[in-house]
Amino acid sequence: MMIIQPNEIELESMRIIHEAIGEYNGPSENLPVIMRVIHASADFDFLHTLTFSHNVVSLARNALRNHTPIITDTNMLMSGITKRYGVKIICSMSDEDVKTEAQSRNITRAIVNIEHAVNKYPNAIYAIGNSPTALIRLCELIREGKANPSLVIGVPVGFVNVIEAKEMLSELKDIPRIIATGNKGGSTIACAIVNALLYGLE
Amino acid sequence: MMIIQPNEIELESMRIIHEAIGEYNGPSENLPVIMRVIHASADFDFLHTLTFSHNVVSLARNALRNHTPIITDTNMLMSGITKRYGVKIICSMSDEDVKTEAQSRNITRAIVNIEHAVNKYPNAIYAIGNSPTALIRLCELIREGKANPSLVIGVPVGFVNVIEAKEMLSELKDIPRIIATGNKGGSTIACAIVNALLYGLE
Repeated sequence: MMIIQPNEIELESMRIIHEAIGEYNGPSENLPVIMRVIHASADFDFLHTLTFSHNVVSLARNALRNHTPIITDTNMLMSGITKRYGVKIICSMSDEDVKTEAQSRNITRAIVNIEHAVNKYPNAIYAIGNSPTALIRLCELIREGKANPSLVIGVPVGFVNVIEAKEMLSELKDIPRIIATGNKGGSTIACAIVNALLYGLE
Repeated sequence: MMIIQPNEIELESMRIIHEAIGEYNGPSENLPVIMRVIHASADFDFLHTLTFSHNVVSLARNALRNHTPIITDTNMLMSGITKRYGVKIICSMSDEDVKTEAQSRNITRAIVNIEHAVNKYPNAIYAIGNSPTALIRLCELIREGKANPSLVIGVPVGFVNVIEAKEMLSELKDIPRIIATGNKGGSTIACAIVNALLYGLE
């Protein structure tokens, strides 16, 4: 049987995911985030790999209510985040000065993007779905006292630097953080987390 | 050990993925597509779920060389595709007339987006990473002779209509197609497939 009403598709999807998860013993505020990530990936691994610092969902929503901007590591992630709540979403990956600086220093544009963002928005929400080097640089800047994000979403994907980057973030105990441990992650995962936080503002 | 040069990160990632895949017995033109999908997801399930129609990679690259536009089902996917090759990438999901029509007909915007695209570009490359209803509508329009895509990438994700949509596409034997069977897929997967096809133009 085909369901074609948009609202019904969403409800039925979430019902299926909820049933598949079964009993959930973690903090209830985390569950909608986990469900939306599974909704975006059809991958139940995230039920076990997503880790949340204490009260992070409430803290993040307070920051969003106070108009804290969201910095992303890719234009793709920026593009996927719902615009419904008027939150400022920023990514300078395509800026010419970021490209030029990255080439001249022979580092990733993702690192330069983060450095520029930290200069302007040290307390922003940082969502990293793609680039482990961006996350590593952000963690260094936090350690040096140059950044103090309201939230770090650390879900880069891949096989090089990814585990190391997530471990670095997990050691920053004072920073509100959501991490997908292991190699998995990606822009759609980061996007699902941000959107779940935003939908919860309603 | 941390690798920070962008080119080295990419090479080392691909080396790890290639080693993990081991012996690959499928058509060699498909392997770079599979590898880039695993690179984007860290999910080796796709080694087994990605299915390719005969010669689809060569056919798709010929279409791209002939300036065939790419239609996407989300802005997020459009945003992630490399702009390096000057290929036209089109998504009208945010257009006001698409929103209005979807609301008045009580169907997904994704369906209306596809209908509008088929009217203008019946032979385009269609990349569907998110919406099964978009893929179903596209398959109906192909059956009715109204669309004859150069390629359909059918990798919507989720639990409602997704398997059915992919089965519909797999039955259209005359259409060049790349499908991720099962529930998994997503915008990052569709994006990785399109980018792998584009990188191969070099």
